[in-house]
Amino acid sequence: MRIAHDASALGIDWPDGRTETFQALWLRDNCPCEECRHPSGQRLLDTRRLPNDLTISSAAENGTIDIAFSDGHTARFDAAWLRDGWAAPARRRRLWDAAIQCELPVGRYDEVLAGGAALRDWLAAVDELGFAILTGGPTAPGTVTRVAELFGYVRETNYGRLFDVRTVVDPTNLAYTGLGLGAHTDNPYRDPTPTLQLLHCLASSAAGGENTLVDGFRVAADLSPDHRGLLARYPLRFRFADADTELETEVPVLTLAVSGELAAVHYNTRSVQPIRVPDVHAYYEAYQAFGRMLEEPRYRIEFKLEPGDLFIVDNLRVLHGRTGYSESGERHLQGCYADRDGLRSKLAVLSR
Amino acid sequence: MRIAHDASALGIDWPDGRTETFQALWLRDNCPCEECRHPSGQRLLDTRRLPNDLTISSAAENGTIDIAFSDGHTARFDAAWLRDGWAAPARRRRLWDAAIQCELPVGRYDEVLAGGAALRDWLAAVDELGFAILTGGPTAPGTVTRVAELFGYVRETNYGRLFDVRTVVDPTNLAYTGLGLGAHTDNPYRDPTPTLQLLHCLASSAAGGENTLVDGFRVAADLSPDHRGLLARYPLRFRFADADTELETEVPVLTLAVSGELAAVHYNTRSVQPIRVPDVHAYYEAYQAFGRMLEEPRYRIEFKLEPGDLFIVDNLRVLHGRTGYSESGERHLQGCYADRDGLRSKLAVLSR
Repeated sequence: MRIAHDASALGIDWPDGRTETFQALWLRDNCPCEECRHPSGQRLLDTRRLPNDLTISSAAENGTIDIAFSDGHTARFDAAWLRDGWAAPARRRRLWDAAIQCELPVGRYDEVLAGGAALRDWLAAVDELGFAILTGGPTAPGTVTRVAELFGYVRETNYGRLFDVRTVVDPTNLAYTGLGLGAHTDNPYRDPTPTLQLLHCLASSAAGGENTLVDGFRVAADLSPDHRGLLARYPLRFRFADADTELETEVPVLTLAVSGELAAVHYNTRSVQPIRVPDVHAYYEAYQAFGRMLEEPRYRIEFKLEPGDLFIVDNLRVLHGRTGYSESGERHLQGCYADRDGLRSKLAVLSR
Repeated sequence: MRIAHDASALGIDWPDGRTETFQALWLRDNCPCEECRHPSGQRLLDTRRLPNDLTISSAAENGTIDIAFSDGHTARFDAAWLRDGWAAPARRRRLWDAAIQCELPVGRYDEVLAGGAALRDWLAAVDELGFAILTGGPTAPGTVTRVAELFGYVRETNYGRLFDVRTVVDPTNLAYTGLGLGAHTDNPYRDPTPTLQLLHCLASSAAGGENTLVDGFRVAADLSPDHRGLLARYPLRFRFADADTELETEVPVLTLAVSGELAAVHYNTRSVQPIRVPDVHAYYEAYQAFGRMLEEPRYRIEFKLEPGDLFIVDNLRVLHGRTGYSESGERHLQGCYADRDGLRSKLAVLSR
């Protein structure tokens, strides 16, 4: 490696032929000495206190790269860190469609509960695919929050720490029997929207009632660019109200990160309010196209939770629904919400 | 009011001279009958099942506006609802600077705890200004979560349901005495970032240690457009790691909504990782300018929490810090996180 510098920047010719330039302020800001960085990696110096006219006084390569600055400070950098040690870790994300039905990410309750590699692999599936299934668990009430606490923290809401999805089917009331639910984002009217949802099956003697999942990111990627653009451009209003609650947010169907990459899907035909966009006709065309693709068999997987089974979804990526079910028998699920930060933290710690 | 229609849309001439056009699909989608809408306002019909080629068969004005569609359904609309009943409620938000020091939003603990108008006004201040203070409360540990539960739900994290900010000052260790903390967003490395933070004072015998707050939205509005553009265009990486935790997110300093309006500020000089942008020099100029404005007296308010006092901030808008404090005495705060959805819901219900 060869280095060269002027007052404003350091240039490095890496052995692989690559050349890179580091600005004086960037180097000073990222000094790794114990005065500037806590062992945890937290920055101790306050970036805003660095002088704008900071310059490099000298630079030398002696195994480490040592740089003296005009503010009197000297920084010693590990060359490997400058080469690629400060880059963000690579992102795990694999889009999927119905073909994944043959290789569903399934963990065994006892193994995942024991922690270690089984828990790590189960969490890695959620991070990569946006969902995972757990089988062979107990049917005890409260199991769903116990699973959430394996990796994170339950997000309590007005529905409680956990909530029951229970329909003791009453054949005299046809409205509450057999109806399927289209793929949807849960609780889009919350700010922030829960990023993880868990659903655990306590009883399932009714015929039908398969759970359906679809990778909203896969479907969004297959939309026409015009439709994708419309769904990302206009916020929709989502709302839920009852006697004790009044929740409302505005968010587009497709939220893009500043990179242009898709960051979140919010689709919920039940709680979305009247759409207000300049060209209603064009918007409905895009909105319908996306909504219908979410129901297409080529994108959708189906599985039936047996008592003791559970699944978890990344609620801003994978939309969930259910098929219709029979008018006799019982179907009892318990659900709770949690967030990604705890899950990804646990996964990272288990992957060390 | 006069109405006219063709197959694709309904036109209304309002008595005030305004003219409006409603598309057939929009009208059908928003039919308010009990078959299409639950009393809660949730949509019962699934928008994606409506035919694309839906047309209006007839329309009549008889006090209500009655529309028959090609799918055989008839919708009856209240004219007042079509005129403005479906609009989003107006947004409360008032930007502030140091001048607000003379009219700080302060509630009395006993009154706010009793609920009703005092709680409503206190929550309204948080919604409008992004912060509020509570005085005269107890110094009992756990008070901070009790206050959060007045309006919402504690967001549990790896720091617990609540956490202690406690420095029993040890004059032999200068590093842990007297140091101020610049204005910052708390926990920017979480996904989602906590939207509310509460801090409650249990003991405060040390001189100094004033809390400082600054309206990040006010400061961002005063940035040059070039600087604002740079801070909104590139994500920064925020990270925190210890033995049991590894949290990391990518988000720009300024997050814009699709409308272009500012939606969130993330600024934390301690946990931000090395900046990776195309023009480092230009970016640092903008980043420093914003960071320094956050410290300017013209934007900043200061107040000292006495034992029993508490404040709450909207963590994605109002940045908080503290001045240095003396080396003798004790300063003990307890903090917790919560989220906006519960607060806004409670405020809306109390405002009914």
